[in-house]
Amino acid sequence: MLPGFTIKRPFFEIGPKAYLYGQAALDLAVQADRLCEVYDVDIIFTPQSVDIRMIAEATRRLLVFAQHMDPLPIGKGIGSVLPEAVKAAGAKGVLLNHAERRMALGDLRRAIERAGEVGLATLVCADNLAEAKAIAVLGPDILLAEPPELIGTAGGGVGSRDFIRRINEEIARLDPRIAVLHGAGIATAGDVAEVIGLGAEATGCTSGIVRAEHPAASMAAMIKALREAWDQRGKEAGFGGNP
Amino acid sequence: MLPGFTIKRPFFEIGPKAYLYGQAALDLAVQADRLCEVYDVDIIFTPQSVDIRMIAEATRRLLVFAQHMDPLPIGKGIGSVLPEAVKAAGAKGVLLNHAERRMALGDLRRAIERAGEVGLATLVCADNLAEAKAIAVLGPDILLAEPPELIGTAGGGVGSRDFIRRINEEIARLDPRIAVLHGAGIATAGDVAEVIGLGAEATGCTSGIVRAEHPAASMAAMIKALREAWDQRGKEAGFGGNP
Amino acid sequence: MLPGFTIKRPFFEIGPKAYLYGQAALDLAVQADRLCEVYDVDIIFTPQSVDIRMIAEATRRLLVFAQHMDPLPIGKGIGSVLPEAVKAAGAKGVLLNHAERRMALGDLRRAIERAGEVGLATLVCADNLAEAKAIAVLGPDILLAEPPELIGTAGGGVGSRDFIRRINEEIARLDPRIAVLHGAGIATAGDVAEVIGLGAEATGCTSGIVRAEHPAASMAAMIKALREAWDQRGKEAGFGGNP
Amino acid sequence: MLPGFTIKRPFFEIGPKAYLYGQAALDLAVQADRLCEVYDVDIIFTPQSVDIRMIAEATRRLLVFAQHMDPLPIGKGIGSVLPEAVKAAGAKGVLLNHAERRMALGDLRRAIERAGEVGLATLVCADNLAEAKAIAVLGPDILLAEPPELIGTAGGGVGSRDFIRRINEEIARLDPRIAVLHGAGIATAGDVAEVIGLGAEATGCTSGIVRAEHPAASMAAMIKALREAWDQRGKEAGFGGNP
Repeated sequence: MLPGFTIKRPFFEIGPKAYLYGQAALDLAVQADRLCEVYDVDIIFTPQSVDIRMIAEATRRLLVFAQHMDPLPIGKGIGSVLPEAVKAAGAKGVLLNHAERRMALGDLRRAIERAGEVGLATLVCADNLAEAKAIAVLGPDILLAEPPELIGTAGGGVGSRDFIRRINEEIARLDPRIAVLHGAGIATAGDVAEVIGLGAEATGCTSGIVRAEHPAASMAAMIKALREAWDQRGKEAGFGGNP
Repeated sequence: MLPGFTIKRPFFEIGPKAYLYGQAALDLAVQADRLCEVYDVDIIFTPQSVDIRMIAEATRRLLVFAQHMDPLPIGKGIGSVLPEAVKAAGAKGVLLNHAERRMALGDLRRAIERAGEVGLATLVCADNLAEAKAIAVLGPDILLAEPPELIGTAGGGVGSRDFIRRINEEIARLDPRIAVLHGAGIATAGDVAEVIGLGAEATGCTSGIVRAEHPAASMAAMIKALREAWDQRGKEAGFGGNP
Repeated sequence: MLPGFTIKRPFFEIGPKAYLYGQAALDLAVQADRLCEVYDVDIIFTPQSVDIRMIAEATRRLLVFAQHMDPLPIGKGIGSVLPEAVKAAGAKGVLLNHAERRMALGDLRRAIERAGEVGLATLVCADNLAEAKAIAVLGPDILLAEPPELIGTAGGGVGSRDFIRRINEEIARLDPRIAVLHGAGIATAGDVAEVIGLGAEATGCTSGIVRAEHPAASMAAMIKALREAWDQRGKEAGFGGNP
Repeated sequence: MLPGFTIKRPFFEIGPKAYLYGQAALDLAVQADRLCEVYDVDIIFTPQSVDIRMIAEATRRLLVFAQHMDPLPIGKGIGSVLPEAVKAAGAKGVLLNHAERRMALGDLRRAIERAGEVGLATLVCADNLAEAKAIAVLGPDILLAEPPELIGTAGGGVGSRDFIRRINEEIARLDPRIAVLHGAGIATAGDVAEVIGLGAEATGCTSGIVRAEHPAASMAAMIKALREAWDQRGKEAGFGGNP
C-alpha cells in the first residue's frame, strides 16, 4: 500500500493492452486526460511500457499505470520491468496479476511491497471473492474484481447487485482503505451506468473502447455515464455519491 | 532475419539490464552514441523498455534494442511487449532468449518472425554451440554466444581461441549472413582486446561498465580497445580488419 | 480444505525432492512408515510423482503427498499432474507453492479447490506471515511456513520463539482448522527438539535426511526427538502436548 | 540421441494426456500392448507420470514414455520430473516440448542430453518445418511434427502429400537417424491410412481414442489401418513398406 495514495470516487480504468501503442495510444490518453477535468473523475490509463514516459509527460491528471512490473531489485534481470524504472518514467502506479499476466503469490506480495518502496500505487486483479480476500491481505491500493461469470455479459446487463455489494462489503471489512474497481464486461456507456447503479465506485473497459469505431467518442460517453450515474446514486442516497 | 539489416564490424553490446534506468541510462547512452562516431563502431544498447523512446530520440547512431519482446499479435496481452510498440518507440532491434529471460522454442521462432515483419533486427542468445546452431536455423540477424564456461573468466583471460573460431566457422557455414557476438565475461578493455584478438568480430559487457566506478570511462576504454584490436588484427591479416 | 481431514500433532514432513527416487525412496518411506507406529506420529512423505503409487502401496500410515499438482480438469494437458490421477495413485494429499515450484495465485486457489473435490489434503508453502495469511483465506489444510530468514540457520539454532508463536496465533485466529508446519532449516534432531520447544506442532526436513551419511538413522533420530520434545512440552504445560 | 535406440516402422503414439489415468489408462495400455504383437508395430504410450511404473510393469512391448521431463540434475527441485526417476520407473522415453507444455530452448537441449545420459529416448514436438529443423540440431530420437494448419482437419482429410514428404526429406538430409512422426488431427482409422499413404512412417492420436465411445476398439482399428496402409505402400513400392 502506497502511503498517502488516494483516488477520487468514481474512477475508471482504460486498458489499451496490446491493441494501442505509440501515437494512437498517446491521442487516446490526451483525450482521456481532458475527460478527467471535464467530468472531475480520476482515470487510470495502462499503456504498453514503452509508451509510459511519453504519455505521462503529455498528460496532467491522468493516472498512468504500468501493465505489469517485476518484483526484482536493481541489478540483473534482462527483460524485466524494474519498479524504479517505471517510477522514473512517470508512472503513478502499476497493474498486477491480470488474467493475461498471472503472478506467483510470492512475486505478487513482493511487487506490492516494491511498489510501496518506490512510490507506485497498485491495482491488483482478482477472479473471485476468495482471491480478492487473499489479495486484500497483501495490501493493494485498489482491487480489480473481474469475475469470469460476469465477463462476456456485456450488452445483456452487468450482473447482479448482490455480487458487487458483497465484494465491496467484504473488502471494506478486511481493509477499508482498499478501493474496489468492478470490471465486468463493460462494453457501453449503459453498462457503466448500470454497474455504478449496482453499487460499484469504479469500473473500466478495454475492447469497448479500443475496438470501437470511434474510440475517443466511446470513451467520452462512458466517462459521462460514470459521472451521471454516480451523481444520480448520490442524489438518491441523499448525499454526494457515497452510498 | 530483417531484410536489409547490416551491422558494421567490429561492434559492441552494452546491456544496462535492471542496473541503470532513467537519467543514468540516458547519460550513458548519449556517451555511447559519441563513441560510435569517434571510433566508427556500431554499438547496441539495450535499455529497460520504459527508456527505449527517450534514448532513441536522444541518440543518432546508437542501435537501441529492446531487452525482450513477446511474439503476440496486436490485440490482447496485458503486460506484454508488443513488437509494433517497440518499433514505434524507435528501437532498431530486440534481444531475445537471454539466460535471464529464456523463451520457449516456438515463441522464439515467432518472435524472430514478428521482428522481421515490423522491421526490427534480432540479437539472440545461445549457451553453447548446439543451441547456436539450432537458433541459426530460425534466422536471427545476430547470434550472441555466451558459453557458461567462459562466463566468470573475466580478468583471467577470455577463453580459448579455438572456441570462438569454431562457433564463427560453424555458423558461417550454416548461414553466412548471421553476425556473431561473443560475450565472454568481458570485464575490462584488456578482455575486449583479447577476445577480438581471438577472432571475435563483436563482444559486449554489462557489469564491467554499469558497476564500474566510472561507467562512461570504462565503456570508452572498451570501445577504444575494440577499435584498436580490430585494426591490429586487420594489419596482421594484411587488410582492413576482416580476417 | 478437505472435509474430514485431520492430522495428529505432532507431525513431520520428509521431502525427497529430486534427491531420492525409486528403490532408495521406497526404502526410506518404508522405514518412515515404521516410525509412524513406533512414535505414534503422522509423517508426510512427498516423493517424485512416478513413485507415489509404489510408496502408497508399500506403506500403511505414512501420508504420501504429491510434490505438486495442476488445477486442470480432466481433459487436455500434456505434462500436467491431474488431481484425479494423483488421488487414484494412492496419495493422501499434495504439497503446493513450494519455493522451488511457485504457483500463480489463481492456480493455487483452484488447486486447493480441486484437491477438496477429489479428496486430497493440501500442504501449502508460505515465505512469511503476509503470505501465510493470504493463503489461509484460500482454505489449505496445512500451512508450511518457511521464512527465508530462518533457512540456513541450521546448526546455529532455529530462530526466535516469537516468530513461531506469532504465526501460529495469527493463523489460528483466521482459521483454527488450519495446521501449521514450521520448516526452518532443520538439519539435526536437536533442531527438531528446539523448534517444537519454541511452539511448533510440526516441522520437516529434506537435506538433513537425504544428504546424511545414514538417511534412515538421521530420520529416526529426528522423529524420536519430535516425540520427546512434544511430550516434554506437554508435561511442562500440564497436559498431553497441546500447549 | 539415445545410443542404440531404434524404433520399428511403422509406429504409433497414443497420448492419454489428462483424459485417462489409473485403471482406465492401464486397461488401454494392456490392450495397446497386445496390438503391438498382433500387428507387429511399436506403440508409444504416454501416461500421466503417476501411472508410468504400473503400466511399464504390466506391459511387454509397449514403449511407455513420460509426458514431460525436467532437465535438472539429482538434487533440489520440488515438483520436478527427474530423468533418473522416470527411467527407474520403467519408462523407455519421454515426450518433450508439446504445444501444451512448451520448453525453453536451453531446457529442451539439456533435457535431450539428460535423456541420453539416463537411457531414455526422446520424442520432441515441432509446430512447423523451421522448428523441426532447429530441433533436429539438438539430436532427438523422434520428431513429432504437428503443424497447426493440419490440426482440426480430422475427418476432412489429413493434409497434402507435399508437406509430409517435405519434412521427411529435410530432416533425413539433416540427420537420417531421426524418425519422424506426423500428428495431423488423426481422428479415425481412415485418417491413419491416409497419412501413411501420404508418406508418413508414424502417426498418433489422443482424442480420437480417449473420447471415442469404445476407446479400445477405436485404437485397434487405427493400428490395423496403420499396418495395412504400410504394407500396401510397401507393395506399391515393390518392397517391405519403406518407400
